[in-house]
Amino acid sequence: MNASPKILAPGDTIGILGGGQLARMIALAAAPLGLKTHVYAPEEGSPAFDVATAHTQATYDDLGALERFARSVDVVTYEFENVPVYTAEFLARHVPVHPGAHPLGITQDRLDEKTFVSRLGIETAPFAAVHDEAELEAALDEIGRPAVLKTRRFGYDGKGQVIIREGDDAAAAFKAIGRHPSILEGFVPFEREVSVVAARTEDGRFKAYEVTENEHRHHILYRSTVPADVTPVVDAVAREIARRIGEALGYVGVFAVEMFLVVVDGTQGVIVNEIAPRVHNSGHWTLDGAVTSQFEQHVRAIAGWPLGAVERLGHVEMTNLIGDEADDWQALLEEPGAHLHLYGKAEARPGRKMGHVTRIFEE
Amino acid sequence: MNASPKILAPGDTIGILGGGQLARMIALAAAPLGLKTHVYAPEEGSPAFDVATAHTQATYDDLGALERFARSVDVVTYEFENVPVYTAEFLARHVPVHPGAHPLGITQDRLDEKTFVSRLGIETAPFAAVHDEAELEAALDEIGRPAVLKTRRFGYDGKGQVIIREGDDAAAAFKAIGRHPSILEGFVPFEREVSVVAARTEDGRFKAYEVTENEHRHHILYRSTVPADVTPVVDAVAREIARRIGEALGYVGVFAVEMFLVVVDGTQGVIVNEIAPRVHNSGHWTLDGAVTSQFEQHVRAIAGWPLGAVERLGHVEMTNLIGDEADDWQALLEEPGAHLHLYGKAEARPGRKMGHVTRIFEE
Repeated sequence: MNASPKILAPGDTIGILGGGQLARMIALAAAPLGLKTHVYAPEEGSPAFDVATAHTQATYDDLGALERFARSVDVVTYEFENVPVYTAEFLARHVPVHPGAHPLGITQDRLDEKTFVSRLGIETAPFAAVHDEAELEAALDEIGRPAVLKTRRFGYDGKGQVIIREGDDAAAAFKAIGRHPSILEGFVPFEREVSVVAARTEDGRFKAYEVTENEHRHHILYRSTVPADVTPVVDAVAREIARRIGEALGYVGVFAVEMFLVVVDGTQGVIVNEIAPRVHNSGHWTLDGAVTSQFEQHVRAIAGWPLGAVERLGHVEMTNLIGDEADDWQALLEEPGAHLHLYGKAEARPGRKMGHVTRIFEE
Repeated sequence: MNASPKILAPGDTIGILGGGQLARMIALAAAPLGLKTHVYAPEEGSPAFDVATAHTQATYDDLGALERFARSVDVVTYEFENVPVYTAEFLARHVPVHPGAHPLGITQDRLDEKTFVSRLGIETAPFAAVHDEAELEAALDEIGRPAVLKTRRFGYDGKGQVIIREGDDAAAAFKAIGRHPSILEGFVPFEREVSVVAARTEDGRFKAYEVTENEHRHHILYRSTVPADVTPVVDAVAREIARRIGEALGYVGVFAVEMFLVVVDGTQGVIVNEIAPRVHNSGHWTLDGAVTSQFEQHVRAIAGWPLGAVERLGHVEMTNLIGDEADDWQALLEEPGAHLHLYGKAEARPGRKMGHVTRIFEE
């Protein structure tokens, strides 16, 4: 709707779709910059409601509530990539939405995302579209086994995917993920998982944090470490990949590019796995470990403001507190220099991200 | 009301009296620790309302509102020392109030405060009580000129005080401050103003940040610098003074002791000027410049939790943004490494603290 970038002023309001910990930490970063927040989420007692200036509890297809929300804010952003595209488009008729419906649409579909990335000449795992059993068999012949079959939409933290190994029944695997339109991806023999968290403004300014090394357990991020054990060349290449992806998406805000670190003939390289069009768990270390946190950076980017410095303050480790691990809060408070972040969630279900802790070591 | 210290758990609620920037920054520090906040203040649109889980807009003598507030929170604290003592005492019948009515009462009265400090054997400026012109003349004879005449109660940022110099009409000075019960203080020929920000828990644990050097302009704090230009001995003595004051007050929470740095025969020493029973402007540097901010430290102390590490992260400068100085927000956002904190106040009146900026330099 707007030709030239809209620049917010202190006192303006950021609208946030989604009420979880990412929205909560965006709101907490907006306040010291003099900005108000309005969180829109369907769930009662959403953690972000606790710290927002205003909140609306309504569904993403409640057009009346969405319109009132749009009229009460100066820019809209979101904390998760599964916001319906029509919701983003409806809001964009009234107010700038950053990141916009375009990156949202692409990253909501694993096939569109991989196609987009590989068309930029950036390496991904080999992949093929799967609509039925016949396509799956053809894809397996081409890509080989083991391979990973994933639903194109609505997957996160390992949900909606299944590995097909030598001897596995392909049809059974397809059934297991609900016979949804899917993508078959070749299995990448990676050394480590890394990510780049980066920010881009509407007028094309770009800054990327150093490459972060990520350790997953049960498909959920367990620990991020910075600096990652990568060569300076890989660090530069990975950031450049993020820059090109951000540019091609016309992206505004913070995003993450998840990558596999592979070693071929003794040389490190990276393969892009996934784009997250939002602040990202692997960037939580920046809250205590970088000059500007990813949350402040996101606010700056969507406000049309200058991006902050991305320098690191030491050797940083961020560990998620999953489920009842958050019960250790007292021990963590006793630990000198440990920075505790709890998300204000009432119930510690298994696998639920309840908080994280950051530790910074001198180098 | 409670014999053993009450220990909060994540999910509990901190009640805060007062809705300005200090309450706002306490609320912003409470959230990452998993605590909710309820801000109680009389002023519509109080800055802290924007970030609190709940707020009540009511006066400090509205007993019905106070009782509902007390029943909705797990501990009460406040952001300013002029909370009526009867309000604190009323709330304390329902819920722990930290710091309590005792330190509140003493620090609300400049004469009680100075008497309390000097009875601890800690040096203050010479002082005398003044109820009428005759007492004022006698006090001037004893203390000499120049001297500072201050109302005993409700003074801050240079309000309610007048300097009496050689030849000045003492009666006119007394009239100028409203002939209120007052204190006459000898003029201290100080080199610099410094302060200690410290925290104490109910079971006696204590931590003090390094001595901070403070520069005032027009009686309002302009800039704080850490480390202060003081000897290691003075740093240790100043922190020990804060420890003894905290101990004698049975203090729970963060407090500040403002001091004058004097040089006698080439040797530095400190004289206590004032105690602030709350987080303090001269501790704002800790938000970006220390492992644990004074706001998180205050939350930890009143929650009955372990105190955090107070180590400094570099050479730190905190500069207040007064009145229209906050209009420079865009330039400050452009400055690499400058940490901007705006308080969300709608109107930039002259002399009003609108925000601050912290700069950290490597040592």
